[in-house]
Amino acid sequence: MSSLLGQSFIGFTRSQSQAKPYRAVNPATATALAPDFFAATAGEVDRACELAAQATPQLAATSGHKKAVLLRDIATRIESATPALVARATQETGLPEARCQGEIGRTMGQLRLFADLVEKGDWVDARIETANPDRKPLPKPDHRSMLRPIGPVAVFCASNFPFAYSVAGGDTASALAAGCPVIVMAHHAHVGTAEIMASLIVEAVKANGLPEGTFSLIMGEGRVVGQQVAKHPALRAIGFTGSRTGGRALMDSAAARPTPIPVYAEMSSVNPIVLLEGALAARGDAIATGLLGSCTLGVGQFCTQPGLIVLVRSAASEAFVAKLSSLFTEAADGVMLTAGIHQAYQKGVTTRSAQAGVKLLAQGKSSGQPNRGVAALFATEAKTFVAEASLQDEIFGPSSLIIWCHHAQEVDATIGALHGNLTATLHGTDVELIANAPLLTKLEAIAGRVVINGFPTGVEVSHAIVHGGPYPSLSDGRTTSVGSNAIYRFTRLTCYQTFPDAALPAELQNANPLNLSRLLNGTRSSAAL
Amino acid sequence: MSSLLGQSFIGFTRSQSQAKPYRAVNPATATALAPDFFAATAGEVDRACELAAQATPQLAATSGHKKAVLLRDIATRIESATPALVARATQETGLPEARCQGEIGRTMGQLRLFADLVEKGDWVDARIETANPDRKPLPKPDHRSMLRPIGPVAVFCASNFPFAYSVAGGDTASALAAGCPVIVMAHHAHVGTAEIMASLIVEAVKANGLPEGTFSLIMGEGRVVGQQVAKHPALRAIGFTGSRTGGRALMDSAAARPTPIPVYAEMSSVNPIVLLEGALAARGDAIATGLLGSCTLGVGQFCTQPGLIVLVRSAASEAFVAKLSSLFTEAADGVMLTAGIHQAYQKGVTTRSAQAGVKLLAQGKSSGQPNRGVAALFATEAKTFVAEASLQDEIFGPSSLIIWCHHAQEVDATIGALHGNLTATLHGTDVELIANAPLLTKLEAIAGRVVINGFPTGVEVSHAIVHGGPYPSLSDGRTTSVGSNAIYRFTRLTCYQTFPDAALPAELQNANPLNLSRLLNGTRSSAAL
Repeated sequence: MSSLLGQSFIGFTRSQSQAKPYRAVNPATATALAPDFFAATAGEVDRACELAAQATPQLAATSGHKKAVLLRDIATRIESATPALVARATQETGLPEARCQGEIGRTMGQLRLFADLVEKGDWVDARIETANPDRKPLPKPDHRSMLRPIGPVAVFCASNFPFAYSVAGGDTASALAAGCPVIVMAHHAHVGTAEIMASLIVEAVKANGLPEGTFSLIMGEGRVVGQQVAKHPALRAIGFTGSRTGGRALMDSAAARPTPIPVYAEMSSVNPIVLLEGALAARGDAIATGLLGSCTLGVGQFCTQPGLIVLVRSAASEAFVAKLSSLFTEAADGVMLTAGIHQAYQKGVTTRSAQAGVKLLAQGKSSGQPNRGVAALFATEAKTFVAEASLQDEIFGPSSLIIWCHHAQEVDATIGALHGNLTATLHGTDVELIANAPLLTKLEAIAGRVVINGFPTGVEVSHAIVHGGPYPSLSDGRTTSVGSNAIYRFTRLTCYQTFPDAALPAELQNANPLNLSRLLNGTRSSAAL
Repeated sequence: MSSLLGQSFIGFTRSQSQAKPYRAVNPATATALAPDFFAATAGEVDRACELAAQATPQLAATSGHKKAVLLRDIATRIESATPALVARATQETGLPEARCQGEIGRTMGQLRLFADLVEKGDWVDARIETANPDRKPLPKPDHRSMLRPIGPVAVFCASNFPFAYSVAGGDTASALAAGCPVIVMAHHAHVGTAEIMASLIVEAVKANGLPEGTFSLIMGEGRVVGQQVAKHPALRAIGFTGSRTGGRALMDSAAARPTPIPVYAEMSSVNPIVLLEGALAARGDAIATGLLGSCTLGVGQFCTQPGLIVLVRSAASEAFVAKLSSLFTEAADGVMLTAGIHQAYQKGVTTRSAQAGVKLLAQGKSSGQPNRGVAALFATEAKTFVAEASLQDEIFGPSSLIIWCHHAQEVDATIGALHGNLTATLHGTDVELIANAPLLTKLEAIAGRVVINGFPTGVEVSHAIVHGGPYPSLSDGRTTSVGSNAIYRFTRLTCYQTFPDAALPAELQNANPLNLSRLLNGTRSSAAL
C-alpha cells in the first residue's frame, strides 16, 4: 500500500489538475486528517467518462468467468488490505473498528455473490425462439434474447457505508458484474478510504487485463463534480445513496438530459413499525429492548432505522412506551459520521421538539464530546401525523416518533398517509396477523420489504433481499440496490434475429457452451439445440 | 354490440360531462364519421384514477389463473366482435380489412400469451432464502421475494395500431397480466374502435367478478386529458406509443411529479440497415425488392420501417440503388392513418428535399386521392449525415434515406453518430459477417433488436422478442413493449421477512402450491419446503 496522494484515478492515471486542497476530518475529535485531497476538474471528469465509453465494448464482451475472476480478485485484495482500510476508515468516519471489519466482510461477500452469479451465468435470462419457415401466413424467424450491460455507470458513495456502499460497494459490484464500466464519486468524508480502495480495484483491473476506463475514482466535494458526471453524454445510469435533496437533484438532471438515463437513488426512509396490542401484551419489554437496539444501532445512521412507531393506546402500549422511554433515556451517545450529519441531526431534533402536537418523550445521555448524536424519542397523535407531511421527513440519526392511534382505523389512516419506504414492520400474535391481513397489504403497498415480528435494520445480502421501495425511499421502486437482483439495474434487453451461430454471444449459441438454463420456445431447458 | 355512444367508460359507468363533441374522420375520403364523441373532463379523469386506486389491492391479490381467465375471455369476446371491429376500424384508419383482421389476430395472440404466462406463474421470479438461526455472528432470517404489480397504469393508444397497441393491446394485456388496473386514453383517430373494444373489456371484467376500476377508457383529443391522467397521484406507470414530442412531454411531466413514475414511451426509430458489398453483389435485386416492401408496408407507418440505408459506393451498390429507385418510382400510394399524419409526412418529405446535400432519388406514384402517402427515396453522403442531426429525424411514412459512404470507416462513423433505435439490420455474406463482428457490436449498442439478412418490419410476439431500444426509440431502453418480457415493466420487487406461511402469497408458500420454479437458497427448484 503506497501512501495517500489525494488524487483522482482517471482510468489508470493518477490525476490532479487543480491546486485547491481539501481534507477529511475525524468526527470524533473534529480535527482534519492528512494528506490534502484535490477535487477533479471538468476536464478530468470528461476524460474518465471518455475512457469508460472506450472500455464499454470490451467489457461487454468479457465472459462471466473473467468478470468473476476480477470480482474475486478485488475481494482478495480487500482482504489483504483490511488493516490499512480499517485504520483509515475509523479515523474518517468515527465508526468503531469492529463495525469497519464487519462492513469489509460484507463488501467482500457482495463481490463474491456477484462473482458466483455471473460465473453461473443464468442471470442473463437467455431466451431462444427457433425459426419456423413453414409457419403461415408468415415464416417465423429465429429470435434470441438476453440481458446485456447498459454502459458506463456513475456510482456516488454513501456517507454511512464507507465500504459496502462506497468505492467497491454494492453498486460497483453489480455494475461490474453486469459488464459496465464504473466511475465512482468519492464521498468527501472518507476520501482516504476511497483512495486505498480504488488503488486495489485499479490493480485488479490491470492484473486481469481489462481495459483502462473499466474503473475511475473522482475526488470532489459533492454536487459540482457529481452534476458534471451525471450530464456527460457517455453515461448510461447512475447509482446513488444519500440525501433526498441530492438524489432528487440527480434525478432531475438525468431526466432533463437530451438522452435521459435511469437514476437509482436511495434517498430516505422512515421505516414504520406497527405494534399490535397482543404482541405488546405478550412481549412488550422484549420488543422495547429490540426496538431501542434497532433505533440506535450505528448511532441511528442506517437507512432502515425505524423512525416511526405506530400503536393503539391501551394499557399494554402505555407500558411499552414507558419502558421504551426509559431505555432511550439510558442510551449512550455516539460519534456521528460527519459534523454536517451531526448538525443536521441536531437541527432535526430541535425542529421536531418545537413542532405543534409533538412531545419529546425521552432523550439519551450526552457526553459533551464533538459530533455525538444523542437518542431522542418523540410522540404525536395520529391525526397530527396524518395532517402534517413534514413529520414523515427522515431525521438521520437515533430518533424515532411514536404515533398514538385511538383505534385500528387510525392505524389504517396513518399507513395510508405514508410515502414510500424501504421497509415496513408489523408485530402481532399469530391470531392478530391472520386478522390483520388487509393491514399487511397496506404495508406492502408502501415498502419494498415487509418484516413480521422483527426489526428492519440488518440487510441481508442474498438472492431474495429487496432493498428498495416506492419513492422517496428509492427513486426507482421497481428495483433493489442490495442482493443479486441488483444486477438487473444495469442491463438492457437485446434481441438477435437470424444470427449465424458463431456471431451470437456464447449464452445464446446452439451448443449452449455455458450450460445455462434457457427459455427454449417457452420451456425452460439447459439442452443444446 | 350496442351502437356507439361516444362516452368514456369510467369504471363500469358510461360517462359524459361535457357537451362539446368531436368526431372521427375517414382518412380515405376525408369525411367525418358519426356519432359524436365527448372528451372526458378533469372530474371524469379523477374518478377513473380513484376507481383504479380502489381496485388495486383486489387485483394484486387476484391469482394468475383468474387473470388468465380474464385475458382469454377478452380475447374470445374480441373474436366474436371481429366483424364490428373491422367495419369501424377500416373506416377510421383507412387500413385494409385484411390488415385489421390480422392485427386483431395478433391482439388476441398477445392476450393469450400473457394468459399462458400468468397461468404458469414462473414469471414472478419467486425466491426463497430459508432462515438459519445458528448463523454467526447474526442469525439469518427467512426472506422471500417476488415481483408484484406496480399499481394503476395509464395506456396511451397508438395511431398506427388500432388493435395491437391500443385499447386491448400489448400495454393493456401486460399491465392486466401483472395485476395492474388500466386507464386507457383512446386515440382520437379511432375512438369508435376504442369504444367497441372497451365495451368488450368492461363486459369481461364484470363477468369475471373483478372490481370496478380494473379498466377505464378515457375519451379525449390528446395532450390535455393525457397530462391530467399523467399527473394523477394514484398513477404508478405510463405506457405510450406515439410521437417523440408527445412521449417526451409525458416523460418530463412524470419526472416532475412530486412522486416521479416510470414512463415507457415508444417514440421514434429510423431503423438503420447496413448493406455490405458482397451481399449486394450476390443478391442485390432480391434485397431491393425486400427493402421496398419493408419501407412501404402499411404505407410506411410502422415504427420499424427502415428509414436509413447505409452502403459503401461500388458497382454493386450503384446497381442496387438504381434498382431500388426504380422500384420506389413504381410504388403505389396509400391512405395514411390521419390527415395530420399525412400532412406531417408531406412536410417531412418537402423539408428533406430542400435540405443541403440531400437528393430526392425517386418518388412513387400519386393517385391524387385525399391523404395518400407517396413513397420517397432520398440520398446523401455520410459526411453530410454525420454533421446534420436532423437527418436522423423520423419521417413517419414510406420514406427512406440512402447514406453513401466512401469506405468502411465512414460506415463506422455513421453508425457511431446514430441515436437509439428499435432495430438495426446488417446484410452480408457469411465471410462478411465474420469480418464485421465489430460492426455488429456497434449496431447492438444503438438498437434493441439486431437483424441479420432480413428486414426489421414484422415484430414477433414471443418470449424472445425485444421491441425497445436506446432513447429516443424507447424512453426506457432497458425494456420491451412486445412479448412476454413486457410484463416486467409493470412490476416491482417485494420481499417478505419472517412471514408465517399462511400470510405469504401462494407463490412463496412452503408447499409450493402453484408448482413454480423457484430460486431456493440460490438453486432453482420446484420442490416444496
